[in-house]
Formats: sequence, C-alpha cells, structure tokens
Amino acid sequence: YQQRSKTWNVFREFVGTTLFLFTNPLMAMDAVHECVPDPLHVALAFGASIALTCVCLDGVHLNPAVTLALVVGLRVSPWQAVLYVGAQLLGAITACGLLFGMAPVSAKDKLGINELASGVNLYQAFSVETAVTFQLVLCVLAVTHPKSPFFSLAPAALGLSVTLGHLIAIGFTGCGMNPARSFGPAVLTLNLENHWVFWAGPCAGAILAWLMYDLLLYPRWTGLSDWI
Amino acid sequence: YQQRSKTWNVFREFVGTTLFLFTNPLMAMDAVHECVPDPLHVALAFGASIALTCVCLDGVHLNPAVTLALVVGLRVSPWQAVLYVGAQLLGAITACGLLFGMAPVSAKDKLGINELASGVNLYQAFSVETAVTFQLVLCVLAVTHPKSPFFSLAPAALGLSVTLGHLIAIGFTGCGMNPARSFGPAVLTLNLENHWVFWAGPCAGAILAWLMYDLLLYPRWTGLSDWI
Amino acid sequence: YQQRSKTWNVFREFVGTTLFLFTNPLMAMDAVHECVPDPLHVALAFGASIALTCVCLDGVHLNPAVTLALVVGLRVSPWQAVLYVGAQLLGAITACGLLFGMAPVSAKDKLGINELASGVNLYQAFSVETAVTFQLVLCVLAVTHPKSPFFSLAPAALGLSVTLGHLIAIGFTGCGMNPARSFGPAVLTLNLENHWVFWAGPCAGAILAWLMYDLLLYPRWTGLSDWI
Amino acid sequence: YQQRSKTWNVFREFVGTTLFLFTNPLMAMDAVHECVPDPLHVALAFGASIALTCVCLDGVHLNPAVTLALVVGLRVSPWQAVLYVGAQLLGAITACGLLFGMAPVSAKDKLGINELASGVNLYQAFSVETAVTFQLVLCVLAVTHPKSPFFSLAPAALGLSVTLGHLIAIGFTGCGMNPARSFGPAVLTLNLENHWVFWAGPCAGAILAWLMYDLLLYPRWTGLSDWI
Repeated sequence: YQQRSKTWNVFREFVGTTLFLFTNPLMAMDAVHECVPDPLHVALAFGASIALTCVCLDGVHLNPAVTLALVVGLRVSPWQAVLYVGAQLLGAITACGLLFGMAPVSAKDKLGINELASGVNLYQAFSVETAVTFQLVLCVLAVTHPKSPFFSLAPAALGLSVTLGHLIAIGFTGCGMNPARSFGPAVLTLNLENHWVFWAGPCAGAILAWLMYDLLLYPRWTGLSDWI
Repeated sequence: YQQRSKTWNVFREFVGTTLFLFTNPLMAMDAVHECVPDPLHVALAFGASIALTCVCLDGVHLNPAVTLALVVGLRVSPWQAVLYVGAQLLGAITACGLLFGMAPVSAKDKLGINELASGVNLYQAFSVETAVTFQLVLCVLAVTHPKSPFFSLAPAALGLSVTLGHLIAIGFTGCGMNPARSFGPAVLTLNLENHWVFWAGPCAGAILAWLMYDLLLYPRWTGLSDWI
Repeated sequence: YQQRSKTWNVFREFVGTTLFLFTNPLMAMDAVHECVPDPLHVALAFGASIALTCVCLDGVHLNPAVTLALVVGLRVSPWQAVLYVGAQLLGAITACGLLFGMAPVSAKDKLGINELASGVNLYQAFSVETAVTFQLVLCVLAVTHPKSPFFSLAPAALGLSVTLGHLIAIGFTGCGMNPARSFGPAVLTLNLENHWVFWAGPCAGAILAWLMYDLLLYPRWTGLSDWI
Repeated sequence: YQQRSKTWNVFREFVGTTLFLFTNPLMAMDAVHECVPDPLHVALAFGASIALTCVCLDGVHLNPAVTLALVVGLRVSPWQAVLYVGAQLLGAITACGLLFGMAPVSAKDKLGINELASGVNLYQAFSVETAVTFQLVLCVLAVTHPKSPFFSLAPAALGLSVTLGHLIAIGFTGCGMNPARSFGPAVLTLNLENHWVFWAGPCAGAILAWLMYDLLLYPRWTGLSDWI
C-alpha cells in the first residue's frame, strides 16, 4: 500500500529473511533436550513464520530458489535478483549469528543445520529437495498472479506450502527447500558437507516449476508481450 | 481466469493428480524408520496437498469418486468423465512411479498402499470408506455451487475435508477416500488384495452424497431446467 | 442462498447433527488400539467436522446449548427451539446407531461416551463444561451477528472454537460442550452415570454467554425493538 | 460495528484478558497427569484463544507489551494505556482466581506459571522473550494498519503469531510473550522468582518492533502529521 524503491526492496529481503530464519531457536532447544524434534512442531513453526513474514513484508521472496524462478520467467531483472539473493544470504547469516549468541552451549555446533538422515543417499536427498521446492515455487507463481482469486490469501497459501514441504522432506534432509535457510547454519558451523545438494535440489525444482507453470499450465505463448 | 479447452482440462487432471499424490514420500520414509506414521502428520500432509493443488489448478477433480458424483448429477458429460478418470489413474501411476524411483529400498514394496488394519473386517472398511467419501463429496458439491458464500475458499474447505477423512479413517484402512490414490500403489506393488473396497466404498459414498445434496438438501425438483 | 421453510430447517438440524457426530468412529478405533487417543487428533477432528457441517448446511445449530442461548435471547421462538433440540437428539442417536453397526466389537460398549477422567470431581467437570460452552456460545453470538466482519468466516471461527474447547476440556471430561453429542453414546450404551453434568454445564455456560453478550458486550438496552 | 466510549474499552480489556487466560486449565490438567504438556497442544490452544477473543471483542490489546508499543508510537494516549494495562492485570488475576477455584489440588501450586526450563539461563530467557514478542508486535502493527490487505483477517494472523511464539519459546520459558499472562499465576502462587524477565523481555521486544516498523519498514518521517 505504498510505492517502494528497489533499494528498499533489497533491504526488506534482508529483514524478512532474518525474521523468518529466527524460528531456528526451537531446533537449538531440541538439541538441548537431546531428542528428535517432532516433525509437526517444526513444520508448523516454519509455515507460520513464512506466512507472518509475508503478512508483515508483502512481496518479499525470502528464498534464492524463488528469486531464480522469477528471474528465468523474466518477472525480475537479473541485477535485482543478484541483490535479492545477496540480501537473503546476509539475512540468513545474521539470523544464525543472533541465534549462535543466544543458543545453549550444547546446541552451538548444530544451529538447525540441514543434513541427510541416516540411510538417505545423495540422489534421494536431491530428488526430495527438488520435489518440495517444485510445489513451493508452483504455489508462489500461482498465488502471485494478479488475477488469481487467492492473491489476497497468498501468505496463507505460501505458509501451507512450506508446512507441506517440511512434512514431506523432514525425514530425508531436515527440509532445506531454501538455499538461504541451509546456507546460514552451514557457514556458521563451517560444515559444508553435501551442502551443494541444498542449492542444486531447490534450483532444479524452481526451474521445473517455472517450466510447468509458464509453458504448460498457463502458457505465455501467444506473443512476445506476454514475457516483458 | 481464462477459458480452457476440454482437452486441456484432461491434461490438468493428469498433472494435478500426479502433484497431489507426490505426498507419498513421507510414508515411504516412515517405512524406513520402521514406525507407524503419526496420523496427524499424514492427515495434514494430504489436506495441505489437496488444498494447494486446488489453488494451483482451479477446478480439477483429482478423484474418480468426485467425478462420479458430478457425472450422475449431470454436471459433467459421461465421455468427459471417462477421460478425467483415465487421466487421474495415469497421474496416480506416474506419481507412484516417480516415488518408486526415489524411495529407499526397504520402502519399495509399500509405497503408501491402502490396507485394512489388523482387526478390521471388509464390512467395516467399506463403511468407513463410504462415510469419509460421503463427507468429502458433500463438501465438494456445497462449496463448488456458484452461489455458495464459500466458493472462493473452496481449496481450504476441501483440504479440511480431506484432513478430516484421514483423521477418521486412517486407523481402519489408511484412508483411501480416492480410488486413484489407492490404485497407484496397488498397481506398482502388484498387491490388489481387497483393492475393490477402495473403489466400492468411495463410489457408494459419492452416490449417497449426491442423492443427499441434489434430492434432499438443495432439491432440484422444480423443473427439468434444474438438471441440464 | 435460498429461502427455506421452518420444517426444512428442523430436518437440516437432524441431518447436520448426524453428519457432525459421525466423527466418532475415530474414537471407537482408538478403543481397538487400547490407547488413550491423542487430544490433538480428537480436537482437530471435531473442529473440522463442525466447520464443514456449517459450510454444507448454513445456519444449523447442531447443539442444544446453542439453541438455548438463541431462545433466551429471543432470536428463535420457543416452539422452534423444542423442534430443533428434538431433531438434534434424534440425529445424535442416529449417528451413534450407525456407528454401533460398524464399530469393532471391543468398541461397542464405549462409542466415544463422555466420562469424567480419573481424579476429576463433579464440581470440576461442571466448571470446565460451563467454561468451554461459554466461549463457544460467545463465539456463535459474535460471528452470527449480521454486521460482524467475520460473518462470512463463521464456519472457520466455530470450528476453531470447538477445537479450543476440546484442547481445554478433553483431559477433564472428554469434552462434551454439546448435550446432543453426550446424549447419543450415553443412550446407546445405557450408561447415564453423571450424564446430567453434560446437560447442566453446557446450559449454564450458554446462559452466561448470552448474558455477557446481550447485556454487557453489545447491550440491547436502548429499546424494546432491540429484542424483537 | 458500533461506537464505544473509552471506559467501555477498558472494561472490554478486562473481559478479554479474563477470557483469553482461561485457556490455562489445560496446563493445570497436565499437572494432574504428571507429564510435560505437548508443545503443539499448548501452542494451538493459546493461538486459538487469542484469535477467538479478537473475533468476539474487536480491537482489544490483551497484552501490556502491545499497549506499550502502541503508546510509544503515539497510537494510544498514555493515560488510556495505564487504564488498559491495569484492566489487563486485573483480568489476568481474575482468570487465575477462577482457575484456582476449579483446578485439582495437585495443580494449585503451578496454575501454568512461566518458569525457566532447566539448563536455560536468564540471558537466554530474556533473548527468547524479546524475540517472540518482537514478531508478535510487528504482526500487530502490520495487520492493524487500516490499509493492510489483511486487516479483516487480523484475528487469524494474531492467533498464528501467538502459536508461532509458543512453538519457539515453550522449551525455554514456557512462553510468556505477555506480561499479564505471566503476572496472574505468579501473583496467585506468590512465586515471583525471575518474574522481571517476563516484563523486561516482552517490553524490549515491543519497543524494538515499534522502531523497526515505524522507522524502517513503513517510515513515518515525512511530516509531523504522520505521528498525530
């Protein structure tokens, strides 16, 4: 409900990602209690966090994979996308830094990092990350279309989509679905083992979702003006 | 928000059913952990999945029982219904095929198949499947009526209805409520034992719900024009 | 979205209560598994069930305590209220009869009856039933006011209120909050021990909520026309 | 949907806080069963309770930290704020008094008091209380802005925000997030150990959220008229 400059939007990406990723304390606490966190608990917290961040800061991406899908669909300029992803990664590091300061000692070496569960191989992790990001980005493209009847309920749909992704993937990889969310803890704990999966999977899912949406479901084939 | 050809709608049924039934990985994973999946986890995942698929692809049926209720109520032509059901079954097989490729070895013989729980007989399974599909189809008929005040919130109501069905039936049959959802894993694991229950129950529930809705609750008796 | 006769509304009360109380199979099943049902499972199922019944059948009461609050506030005529309560009790018996037919043998002596948990005395049970019905009826009066901004979301608010009631009271009494819901299983299992609490508590809560709403929160004192 | 005097609003704060804090019986009951309450159970109950109280009594604050954020942002006069906070504390004591009367004997010494979990130090408790109140107050400021597209869904957003706060903080402090909610049980059980944390944390979070909202996200810098 007010015009904003492009610089402002980059700043909002930073604030939004920091806010959103602050949900991690609960996982740090789970490390204190030395128990596997309840998947429903984590899934509802991440979904609620995304929904509320979208309510407070309308129009933020919060996720490099979402930004990628919007840039390949020519909805966002490449330069703007680079700044957005930078702000998202900076926000993730800030959130994890704050978290590192307030987490109990026993939790400082995890900080809610994404890891492959035992018995899950890299190919399965990649497939699951691709699948959950696919449904998230498809949902983003569908609800942010200005003519969508769900445009005004976008935060609720996106929160539900993030919750669904966690319900599906949490047993495989802890559910990345967002390279920034995986990047923060990986950098602060200096644990980059298999970290590429949490970039490659979401990016593949985002591009597949864009192809599905723009080429098959709501084709933009009728003219060049559809794209610009 | 745009006109679509009938062929397109059949394609959308295929895509939607594939998307919706991709929630199964979580059950495959539960098989890895060798524990009974938490009913709330499964119920919320299926409900969220249906709601989001309806948001992304407005107007899809995703369920042969729903298509049956619409065809007996003369809302959809028989020929169109046959194509829709075909697309739904093909989508279910595609989803389970993808899932088969990425599931851990120990889960490849289940794939989230619907089975009768121990201590549940065929008559109870049939009754429960009829009951949960009855409430789902009644909800579909109520919210898709163009004059319904809940028309714009249809995805939320349908997701809630699917969640409710799972909360009721998951302890009896794993909750079919959708012949396509039961068909996919049954075909891929070649386990068709008691499979007819997951067709007969939902179809009986759909026809009962149609009779209840069109003849009793919102009667279409005043003239022939009500029906065509 | 269409006018309905008063007889029709009585019939709709019967259908709605039967539909709503069909959620009980899940408790019958819990009896099979010989474990305490998860409170969240039961609370979400009852909430979803009420919300969906209100979506399918707009304007039904489904609860003698709600009908009582509307009759003392002169919103419904006494004679109509008697017919409504009769239809609700008949619906409850029908739902429990259907349930009795399809429940496993070991569950036939419970059918989801409301009982005082061990360590809970009658005074506590009465207080808790009064409290949860108070918040439900206050919510009914607030969201069904035609000028309420939440009028169109009434089913969601009522479902949430029923869920909240169960989250609060399920550890004390199994959560009655609805004399019809308690009456059905009590009659079919011929177990009327302490049954009066599940009438007295909800009725007291309904009258207190009506006094709070009509006399304090949104006073109807300015003239006789407010009441008729 | 009707004008109300300022005195009336103070009375409504009292009623609303009493209503909202009546959710505590479930924690008293958990004390009977001598088990740690399920975090999801408590989080959903508090969230639903806030959402329904906001539906029944539109415009109430229910929380001294929220009132503080509104008074520093010059949205509420200081004198009105003092009366509101007084009414909130009185409401909290009333709710806990009613609860004390109906709680089982073994639960009378707790009444759902906020305490630091074992292994959590004061600095961590303060940080977590600040963080969860920060996101709550940011959400309050965002959804109550008259031009917000989520204005009509404010109760849902606030309920979600309270649920999220509990999911994050319940393992650290039981989740205060509201000095009135912490004050009631602390006074009635005469246990004021570390009680200042449940005032200092939320107040710090509220002021940070106000600075973030009014100075950074939606700056009111263009003129004096923005503030008055």
